[in-house]
Amino acid sequence: MIDENRVSETPFDDDKLKEECGIFGVFGHEDAAPLTVLGLHALQHRGQEATGIVSFDRQSFHSFRAADMVGKAYGAPGVMDQLKGHVAIGHNRYSTTGETSMRNIQPLYADLSFGGFAIAHNGNLTNAHSLRTDLVTQGALFQSTSDTEVIIHLTARAKQKTPVDKFIEALRIVEGAFSIVACADDMMIGVRDPHGIRPLVLGRLGTAHILASESCALDIAGADFVRDIEPGEMVVIDAQGIQSKRPFDNKPSKFCIFEYIYFARPDSRLDGHAVYQIRKNIGAELAAEAPCAGADIVVPVPDSGVPAAIGFAGGAGLPFELGIIRSHYVGRTFIQPTAQIRNLGVKMKHNANRDLLAGKNVVLVDDSIVRGTTSRKIVDMVRQAGAREVHMRISSPPTKHSCFYGIDTPSREDLVAHRMGVDEICAHIGADSLAYISVDGLYRALGKAGRDHAMPQYCDACFTGDYAVQLTDFENRAAAQKVTHLQDRQGKKS
Amino acid sequence: MIDENRVSETPFDDDKLKEECGIFGVFGHEDAAPLTVLGLHALQHRGQEATGIVSFDRQSFHSFRAADMVGKAYGAPGVMDQLKGHVAIGHNRYSTTGETSMRNIQPLYADLSFGGFAIAHNGNLTNAHSLRTDLVTQGALFQSTSDTEVIIHLTARAKQKTPVDKFIEALRIVEGAFSIVACADDMMIGVRDPHGIRPLVLGRLGTAHILASESCALDIAGADFVRDIEPGEMVVIDAQGIQSKRPFDNKPSKFCIFEYIYFARPDSRLDGHAVYQIRKNIGAELAAEAPCAGADIVVPVPDSGVPAAIGFAGGAGLPFELGIIRSHYVGRTFIQPTAQIRNLGVKMKHNANRDLLAGKNVVLVDDSIVRGTTSRKIVDMVRQAGAREVHMRISSPPTKHSCFYGIDTPSREDLVAHRMGVDEICAHIGADSLAYISVDGLYRALGKAGRDHAMPQYCDACFTGDYAVQLTDFENRAAAQKVTHLQDRQGKKS
Amino acid sequence: MIDENRVSETPFDDDKLKEECGIFGVFGHEDAAPLTVLGLHALQHRGQEATGIVSFDRQSFHSFRAADMVGKAYGAPGVMDQLKGHVAIGHNRYSTTGETSMRNIQPLYADLSFGGFAIAHNGNLTNAHSLRTDLVTQGALFQSTSDTEVIIHLTARAKQKTPVDKFIEALRIVEGAFSIVACADDMMIGVRDPHGIRPLVLGRLGTAHILASESCALDIAGADFVRDIEPGEMVVIDAQGIQSKRPFDNKPSKFCIFEYIYFARPDSRLDGHAVYQIRKNIGAELAAEAPCAGADIVVPVPDSGVPAAIGFAGGAGLPFELGIIRSHYVGRTFIQPTAQIRNLGVKMKHNANRDLLAGKNVVLVDDSIVRGTTSRKIVDMVRQAGAREVHMRISSPPTKHSCFYGIDTPSREDLVAHRMGVDEICAHIGADSLAYISVDGLYRALGKAGRDHAMPQYCDACFTGDYAVQLTDFENRAAAQKVTHLQDRQGKKS
Amino acid sequence: MIDENRVSETPFDDDKLKEECGIFGVFGHEDAAPLTVLGLHALQHRGQEATGIVSFDRQSFHSFRAADMVGKAYGAPGVMDQLKGHVAIGHNRYSTTGETSMRNIQPLYADLSFGGFAIAHNGNLTNAHSLRTDLVTQGALFQSTSDTEVIIHLTARAKQKTPVDKFIEALRIVEGAFSIVACADDMMIGVRDPHGIRPLVLGRLGTAHILASESCALDIAGADFVRDIEPGEMVVIDAQGIQSKRPFDNKPSKFCIFEYIYFARPDSRLDGHAVYQIRKNIGAELAAEAPCAGADIVVPVPDSGVPAAIGFAGGAGLPFELGIIRSHYVGRTFIQPTAQIRNLGVKMKHNANRDLLAGKNVVLVDDSIVRGTTSRKIVDMVRQAGAREVHMRISSPPTKHSCFYGIDTPSREDLVAHRMGVDEICAHIGADSLAYISVDGLYRALGKAGRDHAMPQYCDACFTGDYAVQLTDFENRAAAQKVTHLQDRQGKKS
Repeated sequence: MIDENRVSETPFDDDKLKEECGIFGVFGHEDAAPLTVLGLHALQHRGQEATGIVSFDRQSFHSFRAADMVGKAYGAPGVMDQLKGHVAIGHNRYSTTGETSMRNIQPLYADLSFGGFAIAHNGNLTNAHSLRTDLVTQGALFQSTSDTEVIIHLTARAKQKTPVDKFIEALRIVEGAFSIVACADDMMIGVRDPHGIRPLVLGRLGTAHILASESCALDIAGADFVRDIEPGEMVVIDAQGIQSKRPFDNKPSKFCIFEYIYFARPDSRLDGHAVYQIRKNIGAELAAEAPCAGADIVVPVPDSGVPAAIGFAGGAGLPFELGIIRSHYVGRTFIQPTAQIRNLGVKMKHNANRDLLAGKNVVLVDDSIVRGTTSRKIVDMVRQAGAREVHMRISSPPTKHSCFYGIDTPSREDLVAHRMGVDEICAHIGADSLAYISVDGLYRALGKAGRDHAMPQYCDACFTGDYAVQLTDFENRAAAQKVTHLQDRQGKKS
Repeated sequence: MIDENRVSETPFDDDKLKEECGIFGVFGHEDAAPLTVLGLHALQHRGQEATGIVSFDRQSFHSFRAADMVGKAYGAPGVMDQLKGHVAIGHNRYSTTGETSMRNIQPLYADLSFGGFAIAHNGNLTNAHSLRTDLVTQGALFQSTSDTEVIIHLTARAKQKTPVDKFIEALRIVEGAFSIVACADDMMIGVRDPHGIRPLVLGRLGTAHILASESCALDIAGADFVRDIEPGEMVVIDAQGIQSKRPFDNKPSKFCIFEYIYFARPDSRLDGHAVYQIRKNIGAELAAEAPCAGADIVVPVPDSGVPAAIGFAGGAGLPFELGIIRSHYVGRTFIQPTAQIRNLGVKMKHNANRDLLAGKNVVLVDDSIVRGTTSRKIVDMVRQAGAREVHMRISSPPTKHSCFYGIDTPSREDLVAHRMGVDEICAHIGADSLAYISVDGLYRALGKAGRDHAMPQYCDACFTGDYAVQLTDFENRAAAQKVTHLQDRQGKKS
Repeated sequence: MIDENRVSETPFDDDKLKEECGIFGVFGHEDAAPLTVLGLHALQHRGQEATGIVSFDRQSFHSFRAADMVGKAYGAPGVMDQLKGHVAIGHNRYSTTGETSMRNIQPLYADLSFGGFAIAHNGNLTNAHSLRTDLVTQGALFQSTSDTEVIIHLTARAKQKTPVDKFIEALRIVEGAFSIVACADDMMIGVRDPHGIRPLVLGRLGTAHILASESCALDIAGADFVRDIEPGEMVVIDAQGIQSKRPFDNKPSKFCIFEYIYFARPDSRLDGHAVYQIRKNIGAELAAEAPCAGADIVVPVPDSGVPAAIGFAGGAGLPFELGIIRSHYVGRTFIQPTAQIRNLGVKMKHNANRDLLAGKNVVLVDDSIVRGTTSRKIVDMVRQAGAREVHMRISSPPTKHSCFYGIDTPSREDLVAHRMGVDEICAHIGADSLAYISVDGLYRALGKAGRDHAMPQYCDACFTGDYAVQLTDFENRAAAQKVTHLQDRQGKKS
Repeated sequence: MIDENRVSETPFDDDKLKEECGIFGVFGHEDAAPLTVLGLHALQHRGQEATGIVSFDRQSFHSFRAADMVGKAYGAPGVMDQLKGHVAIGHNRYSTTGETSMRNIQPLYADLSFGGFAIAHNGNLTNAHSLRTDLVTQGALFQSTSDTEVIIHLTARAKQKTPVDKFIEALRIVEGAFSIVACADDMMIGVRDPHGIRPLVLGRLGTAHILASESCALDIAGADFVRDIEPGEMVVIDAQGIQSKRPFDNKPSKFCIFEYIYFARPDSRLDGHAVYQIRKNIGAELAAEAPCAGADIVVPVPDSGVPAAIGFAGGAGLPFELGIIRSHYVGRTFIQPTAQIRNLGVKMKHNANRDLLAGKNVVLVDDSIVRGTTSRKIVDMVRQAGAREVHMRISSPPTKHSCFYGIDTPSREDLVAHRMGVDEICAHIGADSLAYISVDGLYRALGKAGRDHAMPQYCDACFTGDYAVQLTDFENRAAAQKVTHLQDRQGKKS
């Protein structure tokens, strides 16, 4: 594989999981591309490394892609003038599969036999590697290292006649999680995988139709929320209107439960629930499950911990206070200082509100612990600021398993909850107590009686290891390694 | 006046007042410049258009200045290597006096007869124009349009012998508000004007001394807060230690009350008070003065309105809710869309949490109203999201007068509270009710019985028009215009 | 077709033909990429819009491509460190087929079933469009609009077993002009089309082998010239050494005669002749064919006219003088001035040496006239400088036909010699006399008795319209238009 | 002194002397700034590191300065729109006194008591350091490290009443070489120092007046050459027309003879002579003084050696041939290769024409030898290309002394002719023979009978050490060092 001019990495807090993508599309509006910029701006939290838009003006497709944030990418002179047309689809990306070279920035585009075809994908395919190997053997040239490109090749080689049927033929071959917005033949197509793992919503602005990863992107565009695209549903939007198809076998719904906990914006409504309310519910459940007797104040780790902390404070009858202030100017670790200064790293983003914390018993509320490194620094910072006791409460169950459906998780070995029990983690991060919400508590916050273990209502694989879709590539690789190991041992034997 | 390569404007919300500067200095640490970068990062909210650092390594002064934010400016390759030395002073700037050309970016530096002299200034001089005119007549060459340069020229021409005495001679001539960190002759000097209008605090990191606009900048550098520099005090820090001087006539303290309301970071401690606590106090006072019967929830206009909203919610016994979500990715208005889209502008930064607001009676808490344009859009957005009633509460008295002491205020005519009464403003922004905290309520939140009208304890000129320091330039200009008008009329007569 | 982020155009003198590409490759040297940068620098005159290098280090391929000149592109920090390996191939490009987007910058690279495959192509394929249409129908995805990519797809789909055989299978299908350097499977491959239209030379540096468009690129790399790669020859270079193959049917040699007239650097040796000497010979032939009685001085239009002018001056017994000075700082037309100033355009690049020209009868020697616009301005400039008579002599026959083999020629209608006879052109450019060298004179300068009209020794299609290779795409398009016209007429009829 | 953001160095051939500046000004044309860009473009050879323009539109001054070449600097969007007005003065710079920070880029500008004052200076002041020390003691603040700023401070403090008289008062105090274009009070002022060391010519374009360092800059602007500004003359140009003044005591003319040898463009006419003709004359004189029996060809070191080589070839009756080809794409040394590759450095710029040189006795003609490093490489390259004998002829006398009047010369110790005799240099550069033109031969080429040793007709200090203007700063420093040495010895004694 080639290492094309690499895009310089933008450092983020590596102690958070990352959603890899946000997608957005408009059909039937003269300002399709500007509306898409707005939508992508509202979805910036779903991918900050790169962004792109492809538009179509009945004659030609127009494309712009940049390894930048939305606000900067499309502000360059001439960019918006270029993105003409009544259809536009856009993508924000955080790299999961494939390095972030320019070639991997979506929407991907190709000239197929029926004309131009552009595709923006949120999710991850679990058999992309196997399919790619087959295709290369057949003479296919891959331009990116993205799993998404497999879909384009399969569409290009499909036997069906129409663009839509070719696309469906391709999607029936791939496995994994996908919410996709595509554009071909003066149509916009939206589709979710049979389990509906990643979100996709439908909106309306006058006579125009809009597809977006989250409803907050409809708000910014001034559009009305119509409904979620359903798991396994495909909508085909053209000048005649919108048409709903069911191209896949029926499968149980498995919406990603972590979208509620952390990924989605709190002002979004997804899969029938308001995200902010769910987070508050989780906080209240957590207060019930793991109250903190003798605490003085509830302090969120900002910004993601705020709604759960409000819920916890309400549930526990404790005051909610901004004991940690977050700077919104951070971005890059800009200096390589001496060791002494490097340790101050966490303060680039968070600072303790000393006067408030001094002498207090503090409940800290955060959404998750991934590696544990940041939690440790934050507990220490709060203690240094004078807190008497620091009790950590986490609004998700322990994150023990990697995600293969579109979330950038470190390998399992780097997940602190994979290696340690709760008490050990508590000691590791230096807290006086630590509690996670239970899996059933989490389901209760979502209005269920608890987790249906026979048929879980959500994808919660990162907590339970219960994977909804088979992991073809992963298993092939594991098998390959097994074979190698076997040979190794035999080799050593002889 | 010349218009040198102009720095392109970074647009901010023009419906907020802007602090113009943050200053920071380190004496006696081998990492003086990296520490200064950290400090300036923590003070980024006090000036985002440009930043600079001057360091001194016993041999030479080193300077770097850029029209950029801290995180980007000092990350350029080689920059930090260049800023060698055990002394460093730094400055963040939002343009007030003088256009933001490279020449106006502070610290200003000059080679004087005693050697190099660097100066970083927070505040504004009210007789700079008059002094500058005199100096030019005497053959002085000005390199910037900044009022701060007047201080350097006066120092250069001072009759006193030592650098410190020359600097004092200069400072006795200027009028207005100033907190200054300067560097000369292997010394760092900190000074506040006789009224102490702008803040300046002293910290300690091991054997090193630190000066900073706010205590939050000490925290990030891992330094301990020692005390505020007092109004009219000068500290001279060198290898022998720290020395306190009182070079000016005694004047009553007039700390800027708006620092508590909006400018300072909530995790700072200034002039004896924790900023966060004061804001909560104000919110509670406001709830007492202007309760909102029948309200369902208290919603802050984020981020600045949050502490006062927590105080208000506590005072009023109402739930505190995040009814407006703020995007932290905004920066520039990046597209020039059609009128329809332009109206969505406010949503680039704020979005209503629809599910939460629908059908509710909402108390919105914000810190101030300047022009009224943003308030109007926010009230409208909350209403569109389904709120039944929208009641606005403001944690400052009406802003009716311009600041001449270092805050970027629009001209008086553009202040909505200068033109309209409270009821009129309420109608203008479309709220169901509007209340500001009273001036006495504000003083009560600060622990006073109320405002001492004979000798007000703070500078509150923006609310009361009661200016602590005479406005020499402003009055001269007014007088000049009067004369011109007179001549005009006479001219027409003859 | 999509219009991806377009590279901004660098303006050149549009009154010159442009060579579209220079290629260079190294096998077996630890500094393969730095040597390639040197070689590409020496070949900069063959393409100035974009450049790229792909290297191979036995493990991985590394690629860097930029829309920039060589000196700037590879000077960016970290670029050279990235281009590791003992093999490197490079390309300079002036856009002919395909817009200059990043995707079209060569070497093109793809992962094929046998591993990585990189290719740098000088020339133009005359059946690329037809082949591409077929391939797309079969489901091939094209990532560029370059004709070169067709070769990669054909290689990927070839039935043969080995990389070399697959590549040969592909090359047997394409038609047109090509000199190619490719890299695959730890080999470097060089090949010229059966007619050998574009140049390619072989060099040696110690144990390393080098391929280059011109011998001047061997000089800069300190390498020895070995020989020209022959028309229709393929050399395969690997750790075992160099192997020569003859994969194509024998065809008569048709080296591009314009390389001698203008494209190649005067210090290059190509196809058995020293370029500088040939240009002097042409000048001398021209002096014999079209002497200029009564002339005082011979003045070249710099820089390309200099060797022919030296030859002419020697032949005619007249003094050679620098009557026109060329500025080497030009590049971009940097201001859009008023009409008055725009007419001074030619002087950005050339200025008349007034004191020398005043009162003289001047022979101007230039290499060709394309549109005639620059010649007209130069004649006028020389006359304005005081020349009494201006006689233009051109060291090529009239350029009447477009090139389809890799030279960027305007469409035939824009060639002044296609529209006008010599006398008319003379009047058009305002000269006192005008003469071109005859076609036979040109062949005599190359040591032939004259042109062999039965079997011309060179490709001279731009002068004679005698195309060596069939123009499949061009004829298909012409045929298609004919059909359309027919239908149109029939359509109107019915 | 401070080291402000340093401009990255653009590397040039450091074996050539560099002219430090080109100046240009227009009064009375609506396109004053675009014309100035054209003029500066034609003067690019006089300074390539930085450039600036100040314009005046009867209301305001406008300035743009950049550390870039002309073609790039003024092409940035919006730049030209900004430079409004009917007056414009411009400057190209190669750094001599003062580091190339933005602050040192000319024209310098200041607001004086009478209004704006802008100045562009070609030359060097020999008492600037002494004057600056005095001015700083009096409280003057210097914004640049340029000697030119002294003139502005002296003008600002002058006792005379009018701008012109103040400027004259200042110029009477400075010593050294200066040609200046200034702008103040809706006037353009041009002035040359009493000896007229550096050039300045007057032109006319319609009703507009133009000042330029060389006449080639008038040509590009379409202007007519009027005359040289005379040594010691000041011209004041305003709406009333042009007025000539003689503000200084009469001194003998001492035009820099090196302008004819190398600095000026060959198409310029300066001080009564056409530069190209003088260079040919020098070549012919050199052929007479140092003929080269048995030589086959005369080859210039391009580009600067070409006219002298034509003169030499004509004088010696030998053929003139392009035996060395110069690449015009060089700029920066863009790679840091291994030692082996680094030695190829000279070939980045020059390549031997192997086929021409092989087996020949070659006369190489160059304009000067500074350090000798490049000459050595070129002789070697020519020999490696197969030349039998290499005879070097230099069209200037040996360069033995530093210039203090505006040319960037290395310190005397680095001049090879200061350390070695001609035979030794010949051996050092590896030539078969070496000859320089004699000083008298040089004067003969300029139409004199020879050098008037009592009162030399030109400044030839770099060859003779005969300095026209006293070297105040240099002597003070030498004296200071003497004192220090004395003290040192005494110090050690006691």
